[in-house]
Amino acid sequence: MSRMTGVGVSSGRAAGPIVRVADPLPEPAATPAPADPAAEAARIRPAADAVSEGLFQRAAKVGGDAKAVLETTAAMAMDPALTSQAEQLVATRSLPASRAVFEAANGFADALRAAGGYMAERARDVHDVRDRIIASIEGITPPGVPEITEPSVLIARDLAPADTADLDPELVLALVTEEGGPTSHTAILARALGIPAVVAVRGVLDAAASGATVDGDEGTVELSEAAVAARAAERTEHADWDGVGRTADDAPVKVLANVGSATDSTAAVEAGAQGVGLFRTEFCYLGADEEPDVATQRAAYAEVLAPFAGKPVVVRTLDAGADKPLAFLDMGVEPNPALGVRGLRVAFDRPDLLDTQIEAIAGAAQDSGAEVSVMAPMVATADEAAWFAERARAGGIDRVGVMIEVPAAALSAAEILQAVDFVSIGTNDLAQYVFAADRMAGALAGLNDPWQPALLRLIGMVGEAGRLVDKSVGVCGEAASDPHLAGVLAGLGVTSLSMNAPAVRAVGAALAQHPLDTFRKAARAALEAPSAAAARHTTKTTLA
Amino acid sequence: MSRMTGVGVSSGRAAGPIVRVADPLPEPAATPAPADPAAEAARIRPAADAVSEGLFQRAAKVGGDAKAVLETTAAMAMDPALTSQAEQLVATRSLPASRAVFEAANGFADALRAAGGYMAERARDVHDVRDRIIASIEGITPPGVPEITEPSVLIARDLAPADTADLDPELVLALVTEEGGPTSHTAILARALGIPAVVAVRGVLDAAASGATVDGDEGTVELSEAAVAARAAERTEHADWDGVGRTADDAPVKVLANVGSATDSTAAVEAGAQGVGLFRTEFCYLGADEEPDVATQRAAYAEVLAPFAGKPVVVRTLDAGADKPLAFLDMGVEPNPALGVRGLRVAFDRPDLLDTQIEAIAGAAQDSGAEVSVMAPMVATADEAAWFAERARAGGIDRVGVMIEVPAAALSAAEILQAVDFVSIGTNDLAQYVFAADRMAGALAGLNDPWQPALLRLIGMVGEAGRLVDKSVGVCGEAASDPHLAGVLAGLGVTSLSMNAPAVRAVGAALAQHPLDTFRKAARAALEAPSAAAARHTTKTTLA
Repeated sequence: MSRMTGVGVSSGRAAGPIVRVADPLPEPAATPAPADPAAEAARIRPAADAVSEGLFQRAAKVGGDAKAVLETTAAMAMDPALTSQAEQLVATRSLPASRAVFEAANGFADALRAAGGYMAERARDVHDVRDRIIASIEGITPPGVPEITEPSVLIARDLAPADTADLDPELVLALVTEEGGPTSHTAILARALGIPAVVAVRGVLDAAASGATVDGDEGTVELSEAAVAARAAERTEHADWDGVGRTADDAPVKVLANVGSATDSTAAVEAGAQGVGLFRTEFCYLGADEEPDVATQRAAYAEVLAPFAGKPVVVRTLDAGADKPLAFLDMGVEPNPALGVRGLRVAFDRPDLLDTQIEAIAGAAQDSGAEVSVMAPMVATADEAAWFAERARAGGIDRVGVMIEVPAAALSAAEILQAVDFVSIGTNDLAQYVFAADRMAGALAGLNDPWQPALLRLIGMVGEAGRLVDKSVGVCGEAASDPHLAGVLAGLGVTSLSMNAPAVRAVGAALAQHPLDTFRKAARAALEAPSAAAARHTTKTTLA
Repeated sequence: MSRMTGVGVSSGRAAGPIVRVADPLPEPAATPAPADPAAEAARIRPAADAVSEGLFQRAAKVGGDAKAVLETTAAMAMDPALTSQAEQLVATRSLPASRAVFEAANGFADALRAAGGYMAERARDVHDVRDRIIASIEGITPPGVPEITEPSVLIARDLAPADTADLDPELVLALVTEEGGPTSHTAILARALGIPAVVAVRGVLDAAASGATVDGDEGTVELSEAAVAARAAERTEHADWDGVGRTADDAPVKVLANVGSATDSTAAVEAGAQGVGLFRTEFCYLGADEEPDVATQRAAYAEVLAPFAGKPVVVRTLDAGADKPLAFLDMGVEPNPALGVRGLRVAFDRPDLLDTQIEAIAGAAQDSGAEVSVMAPMVATADEAAWFAERARAGGIDRVGVMIEVPAAALSAAEILQAVDFVSIGTNDLAQYVFAADRMAGALAGLNDPWQPALLRLIGMVGEAGRLVDKSVGVCGEAASDPHLAGVLAGLGVTSLSMNAPAVRAVGAALAQHPLDTFRKAARAALEAPSAAAARHTTKTTLA
């Protein structure tokens, strides 16, 4: 029995036998040279087609995001640029087929990485496709999640979207990864499934063990060489939530959903969300060759808003930048896209884009009957907030807010709240800037932890500013979906929490367990904790 | 008479006739095709050589950094890869010589930009060389600063190091740029020369005017069509500083220097600095093919320390990362190098590098007789500070501190000060993270302003934490070199200011002008200001 620690990213405790996700394939050898290069080259395309077909078949069985992820990866596998370049490498450099695929794919991945930002993150997908094609050529088991036959704890280096898109949630008790961080795909998936997860557990892949007990609150994994009986996290404890977000003494804390599509909205209503705290509008722009016109945007937004007729929905205006580029806007190349011209900053040069979007949102609000407010991303100062509020109100939106995701905005919350009706804290980006730690960097995962006291202190400053002027302060980052953190956030003065649909019931139930004063006491203890782990621990003790 | 506003980046007020720095050359035409391509291609190398020779001649007349900058640019101009590629473009695509140089150089610059970070910043230098060679081919005036014959206000789009390396400081009254930011080359140069500067003045290049009055405190430029008599900023007012940093009522505020070479140290002593608040040690590593050994580092550090025998010197340990890569460390490519593994974070994986450096610093302290302390860059949490302090003390350094440049560290200053003896605030990076605004991005210059109230609030939190435990709180970013801000920082609880040598006397004299209570009053007013401009203005009123 050995105990390892990492970063707990999804709450709960579960145990079961271990299933290991196969590591990436070893690098294929560049020799021996094939006797018949033409025959060797001819092995590539059928292998790529088989991979693509397998992924399309998996895509056909699922819906929503999982389908999109699998279809994208399938399309990448049949990219003729990749296969023809690999074939050429066999012909010109007498490489074995596997090696040729390896080199051709790496060339693509390097180019993506060199492009930086959003493109760089796609490099991982190219590597995934590369390994699947190589496994198909070699006739070996592809890397990734093996077939799971009994409820298990999944242990992996890290999980790619294609690894997990069609996982059977009934058979996955918990997730543990050697790398990754609180905003990695693994973490988001675990919270979506409502299962415990611990990431950045250095050495867990090399540990000999057949069973594991995972504690997503403590960030620990207990490994055992003996068999461990499967024990799922108690997911049913929250089933009795009555659908109204409030503490045990009836202090209201709205439980809202994050959505980015009509499918999300339907799921959010089914989960019992009281409204939408973050409606991401990028889906309307991504992939568009030119700016979508008012009618197109209005129709797209109305579809997402429709399930929430009569309920509050906060629409976030376009959040694009060099890291999330749009085809019709020349975002340029920035050395640090996360610190560049993104979010509302794009609108300072192109206010017409904002005006068009506001007009479409106002129209969609009428069409759908939802109680719509808007908020701007990446606001840094009170002047910026006032500029946005003026434009949004002039465009017919009555209730206007801004995201607090830049530390300066948190430090200026009182002034910002003079200009707007509400604020919403985006904890993912806020943590990234507060700790100067890229949220995608696995090595810095320990810093990007929503339980870090420095982050909680900043959230507390915003909560206090909101309390003084009686305006609402939401949280719409990943932090909002942690049921244990929910009470602490309420204790810090947060008046609404917005999360992915699967977390709604657990958060709603957690809020109802204690009166607000108990949460305030827990919040004070967490603020004074010397580390994220200590904050987690002291909260668990206070709220036990 | 018209008044334009920008971001004041160097204090003071001066007036004079305008000298405009020529804009970059227009894009050379790709036609007509040369009648004799071989003869056309032969024009390139002599032009490049002439540019290179001219730059080397300018380099020979100056010393220190200016020499290095000019020599680097000269070497770039004679790079055979550039000239031979341009020659090839004439031969293969029948381009005029100017156009061929243009395209070849742009290819290089694009590759540098794609590499990101530190390399990307070199792209500007390639464009500078490109335009000089084209001007030489065409026989026209090269872009850049024309010959200045009388004291003038220089107006430019932005200034490159090669533009300004050999400027005659006696003839430059003030600098105004259309682009750039508070940490741009222009801003740093202006503060080094002690002349007023305003950057990011949109539209100033297009304004018709022959004279200008520049106010670096208000961030304004008054343009006049009539002639304006030259009036230098009153640089002599500080000559009576007695060399001891203190307020009018004798509260000590040490006036220290930032150094990165033995030349800097000599200049700092001559300027009257009471010690060194920031000794940058990267010079010892940059360009090295392997890690410099203890003896090499010890000798190099001792040379810089020697002029400060018996005086306090704070040595900062290595601050490298993907944005400032070292040849012997594989830093990898990061999507956002400024948010990546840099500073002390490098040492978490390679503590041997830190131990070697600490040993060398301790040795150099003995050799030089300077009172040496060390501090670590990019610390985010109290745990990290404690880790560093333990290693440094084990290595024989008694006084240990950390930089506060990550917002989380400022929010955890009280806990950090339990682990270390002092902290020093790096305002340049701190501002970049607090505003999530790349300090190199001209479009975001207004955010990266040390007068921003949100930044001052964070500095005030650190000052208060230091006051409570009676430990020193320094500032070693560009903010420390602004004489008007110096008093505000002292009022916020800062106990030492470290700056480039030319600012020392002005800051020392500014501190002596008022008692600490007056500075505290000014600080409170600045903290409550709604914007950077308002903070600047209210301070000027309070300290009038």
